[in-house]
Amino acid sequence: MRITIIGSGNVATHLSAAFKNAGHRIVQVYSRSMHNAALLAYHVNAGAIDDLTQINPETDLFLIAVNDDAIAPVVKELAKYQKLTVHTSGATDLLTISASIQKAGVFYPLQTLSKTKEVEFLTVPVCIEGSDDAVTRELEQLAQTISNHVYRINSDQRKVLHLAAVFACNFPNYLYGVAQQLLEQQNMEFDMLRPLILETAQKVQNHLPADVQTGPAVRNDENTMDAHLKLLDEEPVLKELYKLLSQGIIKKG
Amino acid sequence: MRITIIGSGNVATHLSAAFKNAGHRIVQVYSRSMHNAALLAYHVNAGAIDDLTQINPETDLFLIAVNDDAIAPVVKELAKYQKLTVHTSGATDLLTISASIQKAGVFYPLQTLSKTKEVEFLTVPVCIEGSDDAVTRELEQLAQTISNHVYRINSDQRKVLHLAAVFACNFPNYLYGVAQQLLEQQNMEFDMLRPLILETAQKVQNHLPADVQTGPAVRNDENTMDAHLKLLDEEPVLKELYKLLSQGIIKKG
Repeated sequence: MRITIIGSGNVATHLSAAFKNAGHRIVQVYSRSMHNAALLAYHVNAGAIDDLTQINPETDLFLIAVNDDAIAPVVKELAKYQKLTVHTSGATDLLTISASIQKAGVFYPLQTLSKTKEVEFLTVPVCIEGSDDAVTRELEQLAQTISNHVYRINSDQRKVLHLAAVFACNFPNYLYGVAQQLLEQQNMEFDMLRPLILETAQKVQNHLPADVQTGPAVRNDENTMDAHLKLLDEEPVLKELYKLLSQGIIKKG
Repeated sequence: MRITIIGSGNVATHLSAAFKNAGHRIVQVYSRSMHNAALLAYHVNAGAIDDLTQINPETDLFLIAVNDDAIAPVVKELAKYQKLTVHTSGATDLLTISASIQKAGVFYPLQTLSKTKEVEFLTVPVCIEGSDDAVTRELEQLAQTISNHVYRINSDQRKVLHLAAVFACNFPNYLYGVAQQLLEQQNMEFDMLRPLILETAQKVQNHLPADVQTGPAVRNDENTMDAHLKLLDEEPVLKELYKLLSQGIIKKG
């Protein structure tokens, strides 16, 4: 497939590499910054542009991987070509594209992607949605060339999925940082916690979280929880977080 | 070394197996439940007792791996032998033992241990503390027979470490469960999130959490956060959690 990538961020970078590796042709990479466009275009053997009027219409797919706020303005520019056009956003409705482009879709990779960290794309779940059955099938086939985990997910589901991903990824990562900070205050290294973090995530690969919950809250061990809260006396926000999260665990247990 | 295990829970089970595999001899396993004592004793080729008066004093180490509340009563029973005695608790002071037994210590494995899940013990950090230098060295040597990651950690540090472990393990696991629940409400499977959870933990094995934070909060993407809060309108506790955690990420970013 001939694919044009709009954007040069984390998602654009990982997706264009995955498409390239699967044998697709990246026609152009657009970014507001020519430097960023050129950098990514170089890696995937494509043309670089920083102006949407320079779009080459000889393409099969416009893939929009830009900040959510920037999707609508880009769609407005691309509407005149009426090519198959998708966005990659978990939080944006299909309608943002389908209102002005007939063959519209969503191509949402459910993974935390950083430029500095490679990822085995075949393991990344890709959630697709099309404006009609033919588009859905076409996107499904495309997704299957880069991932072994392709799901048909409608816009309502995707919004909840995106929210769930915040709870499963962004918030745990923040809590890792809180833990690191607590260790630093007592001159201990984050290395001490790394095996624990990994094992916690590995456990739920084969179990449900509630079945492998450990710690003072699930045992309703009030002495330990009180001692922990006392240690957080000078961190009112963390103290509040500790209480809320522990209450959640106790309620579930 | 001849080791007597007091307890038959997750920590007792994993530690006695690790000691056995490293060539130590488990003398006896004590549990209040003879069934549990016998089950673990069978696996590590030891005697089983459910009464502390049946303790065989021909041992080099009493390892107390019971609930925190039960440590002090056990120490009272064991004090008459004046053998090297350690507990395995993150939240309990060394003094709980050293007040009545001269050779006292702590042997705290920093991992989330469930009986249903095997773990490569060599990767588990073990935090040790001794009542004097000789005890510390003895425990350090013992720990090095089962783990490649042995740390000398005093009681004040260990309490903070235990708290940090709650933030790095117990709370993230709870959030995984919240995510699973959100998916279920929209008929989506937890399987969709498993690669994301694993990748999030793998990322911080080589990076610091703050350097790989993703999601709407770190971008200060208010539209998405508002949309997420709206989805949580009927879950006031989760809504409050979402706000607190997002504010924490924004503040750090």
